[in-house]
Amino acid sequence: MTIVGVGLLGGSAALAIRKVHPGVEIAGVGRRESSLAQARRVGAVDTVHLDAAEPAARSDLVILATPVGVFEKHLRAIAPVLRRGVAVTDVGSTKAAVVRMAGRVLGRDGPFVGSHPMAGSEKKGVAFARADLFEAATCIVTPTPHTPPAVARRVEALWRAIGMRTVRMTPARHDRAVARVSHLPHVLAALLTMLPGRGDLEAAATGFRDATRLAGGDPEMWRDILLTNRRAILDAIDAFDEDLCQLRDLVDVGEAPGIERFLAAARKRRDATVGGANHEPPVTME
Amino acid sequence: MTIVGVGLLGGSAALAIRKVHPGVEIAGVGRRESSLAQARRVGAVDTVHLDAAEPAARSDLVILATPVGVFEKHLRAIAPVLRRGVAVTDVGSTKAAVVRMAGRVLGRDGPFVGSHPMAGSEKKGVAFARADLFEAATCIVTPTPHTPPAVARRVEALWRAIGMRTVRMTPARHDRAVARVSHLPHVLAALLTMLPGRGDLEAAATGFRDATRLAGGDPEMWRDILLTNRRAILDAIDAFDEDLCQLRDLVDVGEAPGIERFLAAARKRRDATVGGANHEPPVTME
Repeated sequence: MTIVGVGLLGGSAALAIRKVHPGVEIAGVGRRESSLAQARRVGAVDTVHLDAAEPAARSDLVILATPVGVFEKHLRAIAPVLRRGVAVTDVGSTKAAVVRMAGRVLGRDGPFVGSHPMAGSEKKGVAFARADLFEAATCIVTPTPHTPPAVARRVEALWRAIGMRTVRMTPARHDRAVARVSHLPHVLAALLTMLPGRGDLEAAATGFRDATRLAGGDPEMWRDILLTNRRAILDAIDAFDEDLCQLRDLVDVGEAPGIERFLAAARKRRDATVGGANHEPPVTME
Repeated sequence: MTIVGVGLLGGSAALAIRKVHPGVEIAGVGRRESSLAQARRVGAVDTVHLDAAEPAARSDLVILATPVGVFEKHLRAIAPVLRRGVAVTDVGSTKAAVVRMAGRVLGRDGPFVGSHPMAGSEKKGVAFARADLFEAATCIVTPTPHTPPAVARRVEALWRAIGMRTVRMTPARHDRAVARVSHLPHVLAALLTMLPGRGDLEAAATGFRDATRLAGGDPEMWRDILLTNRRAILDAIDAFDEDLCQLRDLVDVGEAPGIERFLAAARKRRDATVGGANHEPPVTME
C-alpha cells in the first residue's frame, strides 16, 4: 500500500496497519527527504518516494494524508497507473469538495471513497505518530451512490482493523455535521480568545481556558478547512447567530423562566452527548 | 466569624480558614437543618444557626455564600447588630448589583466589600467542600472609592491567607471582565450544545466535548448570573456578534489571507493567555 503524506496522521496510520498486518509492504510518499528519512527511522514505512505514481502502480490501497490542497495533484499523478481492484481514500476533514474532485479525476464510479478518521493531536509530524492514535475513535466514510461497494467495504475494513468505529454518511451530510460539531466550535473558540481586553484577562480562569482550547489549532490547516467547507460553515454560523440573538432577547427583557429552561435543556443535551457515543479517549483535535 | 450559606463555597472557605487560623470560632448559617448538621459533621463550622443576626452580632468577619438572590434578606437581618470594626464580604459571581445593594443596606461607606473567588466545582453542597478549593486561584476584590480601606485590606488578607492571589477591580470593571471571560463562554457553550441535530452528533468527538463543557453548569445559578450581570452580558454578546459577522464575511468571500491572519492571531492570544496568569490547577467552574 501507499501512504501519500507521512505526517502525524499518515505515519500513525502506517504504524497501526503494520501492527495488525505485519506482512504488508508500506510505501511512504513525501516532499521532503528529511521527513521521509524520519518516517523510515520510526518504522512507519518500508520504502520512501518523492513521486506517488511509482509505488501507487504496485499498490492495492492508497491513502492520501497530505493537506487537502494537494490531493488533486497527487490523484492526477497516480490516476494513469492505478491497478484494477485498487481502493483509494483520504484522511481529510471535509468531504464534499474532495469527493467531487476525486470523481472528476478518477471517474465518479472510480476507486475513491472519502474517509474522515476523527482523531488527531495538536502535534504535527511523523515524530509524533503513534500506532494507537485512531484506537476507539470514529471514522466517517462517505460513499456516494456511484462508489463501487467493494471500495467502500475495503476502506471500512481498513479503519476497523486498526480499532476504529466506522459510520457512513453522504459527503454533504458529513460536511454539515462537522461544520456544527467541529468547525463552528473552532471558530467560536478563536473569536472568544480575541474578545477580552488586556485587563479582562485578570479574571480568566479554567472556564476560559477550556472554552478557548480549540483556538490552539494550526492556522493554515483551519484556513483550508473553513474554505473547503465554506457553504456548510456559513449555514452553521447563521443558525448559531439566530439562536444567539434569541437568547440575547431573553436576557434583554429579563425573561427568567425562559433563560432557565434554555440552560436546563442545554445541560440535559450535554449530559446525553457526553454520556453517549462520545466517550472516546482524550485527544485534543479532530 | 460567620459564614451565611454553608454549601460548597461557604464550607470550603470555612475548612480553609480553620486550617490557617485554628483558633477562630466559625458560625454557619443555613436554611436547612440537614445541611447545617452536615457542615458541623465535616468540621467546617463550630455552631449552626437558622438566623444570621445572632452569630453576626458577635463576629469580626461575615461572608455571604448563599445564592446572590438572598443576599439582601441576610444583609437586612444583620445590619442592625453588626459590631464596629466588622468586615462583610461575599463570594458571588457578579459584583455591581451586589455592591450597590449592600451600599443601600449598610451605607455606601459601610463595612461591605465585594469578593469573587474564582474557584468552584460542578458539585454542589458542603459534602464536596475542600480546604484546598481556593488554593492558587485568583480572588477579585471590588472596593469602591467609598469603601473603608481597612475593610478592603482585611478581606484581601483573608483570601491571601487561604492561598489565593487577590486582584482589585471596580465592581463594573469586574462585571465587564467576567462577562467576557466567563459568562459569554457559558452562553456560547450552551447554544453550541443545542445546535447539532441527532445525526450530526455521530461526528462529535473530543473537540465538541471540550467546547460544550461549560454547559454542564447549574441552570438556576447561571440564570441568576445572566440576569444580575445583564448589561455587561448584552454588551459582550453584541461585541462577539459583530466579530462573528466579520469572520462570516471573510469566509463568505473566501478571503484566505484574512482568515489565516485571524486564526494565527487567535492562536497567539490563546498561547499567551494560557501560558500567563492562568496556569491554575484544573477546576471546572468559576
